[in-house]
Amino acid sequence: MNVSSHTLRISTEGDGHIVDLTRDVQAAVRTSGVTSGQATAMVVGSTASLTTLEYEPGLVEHDLVAALERIAPENARYAHEETWHDDNGHSHVRAALIGPSLALPIVDGRVPLGTWQQVVLVDLDTRPRDRTIILTVIGQPEEPA
Amino acid sequence: MNVSSHTLRISTEGDGHIVDLTRDVQAAVRTSGVTSGQATAMVVGSTASLTTLEYEPGLVEHDLVAALERIAPENARYAHEETWHDDNGHSHVRAALIGPSLALPIVDGRVPLGTWQQVVLVDLDTRPRDRTIILTVIGQPEEPA
Amino acid sequence: MNVSSHTLRISTEGDGHIVDLTRDVQAAVRTSGVTSGQATAMVVGSTASLTTLEYEPGLVEHDLVAALERIAPENARYAHEETWHDDNGHSHVRAALIGPSLALPIVDGRVPLGTWQQVVLVDLDTRPRDRTIILTVIGQPEEPA
Repeated sequence: MNVSSHTLRISTEGDGHIVDLTRDVQAAVRTSGVTSGQATAMVVGSTASLTTLEYEPGLVEHDLVAALERIAPENARYAHEETWHDDNGHSHVRAALIGPSLALPIVDGRVPLGTWQQVVLVDLDTRPRDRTIILTVIGQPEEPA
Repeated sequence: MNVSSHTLRISTEGDGHIVDLTRDVQAAVRTSGVTSGQATAMVVGSTASLTTLEYEPGLVEHDLVAALERIAPENARYAHEETWHDDNGHSHVRAALIGPSLALPIVDGRVPLGTWQQVVLVDLDTRPRDRTIILTVIGQPEEPA
Repeated sequence: MNVSSHTLRISTEGDGHIVDLTRDVQAAVRTSGVTSGQATAMVVGSTASLTTLEYEPGLVEHDLVAALERIAPENARYAHEETWHDDNGHSHVRAALIGPSLALPIVDGRVPLGTWQQVVLVDLDTRPRDRTIILTVIGQPEEPA
């Protein structure tokens, strides 16, 4: 059995910016040498989320955020903003609903995502942020030939 | 330590069809021989999700989808549909919000779900689909007697 | 490699009561002796959820529940309630959307949460409940000195 940690650092524009992490996640799994096991990915912080999404401009630049605006409108009343005199109450609420982490199976040395299914970081804060995503990979390493 | 992968293939009717996977998930855990550990389940594809739900007709056939219709109405404007000339923008958005995967603890050889808590596949696409769910199970196998 | 299970028992007031589990989760990881690996946390039952949230009164006592009320209003029509003559259809729907479990990385003997990011239990039922959260921890134990 093999355990390893991997850190991704991603600069975002905030405000619903969605970043495709698939290549980085698959690279971390490859680096780990695990062929069968599990990866856990978590974004550090309470105003960003991880999920999977087809990474195409319509969904990424409009559709997902339009739905989040129905759930937690930017201009609704947030007690968080009244207390802390900031503007990101909706960011916190949206992030808690989508969730901070993903559990990902590893089969044949990769996460078996669909062709149009990407692992994405959704930055919901109201300003550009430098984000840290932690991945741990556990499993069976490749048998020596 | 023991690692194994299990594949479930499920035909759905699409359009919010919810399928109870509990029996299949518990069977995979039993097959794995792991008595203490973790299972990771992920649906392949970007228009379906995994969560837990009490599997009873009211929730399964009406209530969950009614809430999703508030978040991502079928007839809202989706840039995804304008680009690709399809009809499943809401499917993608709903799937990203619920999420594609579940992390499940294993104790005493099973996932310790509640009596009225089932592991479910929610197929959000607009047509019948053949779905693949990948489970990996890691943990301590039963001690030999 | 090391595998262990940990059970948290939490009494809640129901009705959107949010409880900070961070200290309990970090203590379980510490008890496990795992320095590098993964924790899986799941709440047993179909009317509560786990996520991460900044644990401050505005978000905890108002903002998250206000968003859930937009998604699954308490007074909407629920087929679940018509069938079972109860009042918690919205609780089930909200719980399924947030999700029952969290996959958490472990690095240097702790879950690397942000300073304002807490692991929380969200009890969505309509009455006080005694909740059980199961954690399993898998990974590499500390090297002996």
